[in-house]
Amino acid sequence: MMVSTMSPEECRDLLSRFEFGRLGTAHQNQPYVIPIYFAYDGRDHLYSFTTLGRKVEWMRSNPLVCVEVDEVLSHFHWSSVVVLGRYEELPDTPPYREARLQAQARLEKKALWWQTALAASQVRGESHEANALFYCIHIDEMTGRRATSDPVESAIGLSRAARPAPEK
Amino acid sequence: MMVSTMSPEECRDLLSRFEFGRLGTAHQNQPYVIPIYFAYDGRDHLYSFTTLGRKVEWMRSNPLVCVEVDEVLSHFHWSSVVVLGRYEELPDTPPYREARLQAQARLEKKALWWQTALAASQVRGESHEANALFYCIHIDEMTGRRATSDPVESAIGLSRAARPAPEK
Repeated sequence: MMVSTMSPEECRDLLSRFEFGRLGTAHQNQPYVIPIYFAYDGRDHLYSFTTLGRKVEWMRSNPLVCVEVDEVLSHFHWSSVVVLGRYEELPDTPPYREARLQAQARLEKKALWWQTALAASQVRGESHEANALFYCIHIDEMTGRRATSDPVESAIGLSRAARPAPEK
Repeated sequence: MMVSTMSPEECRDLLSRFEFGRLGTAHQNQPYVIPIYFAYDGRDHLYSFTTLGRKVEWMRSNPLVCVEVDEVLSHFHWSSVVVLGRYEELPDTPPYREARLQAQARLEKKALWWQTALAASQVRGESHEANALFYCIHIDEMTGRRATSDPVESAIGLSRAARPAPEK
């Protein structure tokens, strides 16, 4: 297996193709990671939607976040992009109207994106309308790594045989 | 879609079946998330193996970490376990001999676990032997959520139709 650094263009391409990743937040130096759905604007913003909970409280007190997105085809063939950025809430007020419309338009292209956030609020017994919110992540840094099989692995077919654990 | 809280036993079951997750670390309140391979001891430890890099430097200065593991079968059918814990390095010295053997034995059951860490060191142009290290995560808190389709979604077959983005 050979691992190489992805170009900025390759990183942007992966973020554009995916809508599912993991969001890292931190509070008093305790990191916290959860899965999220997002939409990428192709430049320097990710948009997402959620309901109130620990991650929103943490991002309000510390806006530094990390988003990791990976495409795992096999042990020998995967890509992973890591974004470092800053959280900004998009409240339902006139100054944020344009940004909210932008977020909503991009997220609506992703089927069913809102189901997860709303269902998560149900488990906490919350009212949907009061707690739903849009947010944006301003991308400050983006890095990516890609693994490919080496000639020996390809020749013996390992890259097809070894499926990653999440496929079980 | 209905989301419910997983029992401690269900969380342990998911961690036991998987070997691939995302590790969150934090440095000066900046979170950082990367994919990792791990082995779970069935109780309160995760074991992993890596090479020197940003995540090790960060965990040495702040041992608080988070590991997220998810099983996404469809938009309507997924489970996610979040572990909060503390990093402990397992150096190659007599006091850590037992712990290292334990880590090694559990990790060796996971095929090819060492390939990723070693290949990652190649991209940084490092010597393998000098930089490879085992570490353990002591689990302090473990929570899980599971989504299942509601009767309407099941009836119209949405749970099978909607594959998550990483399957593209």
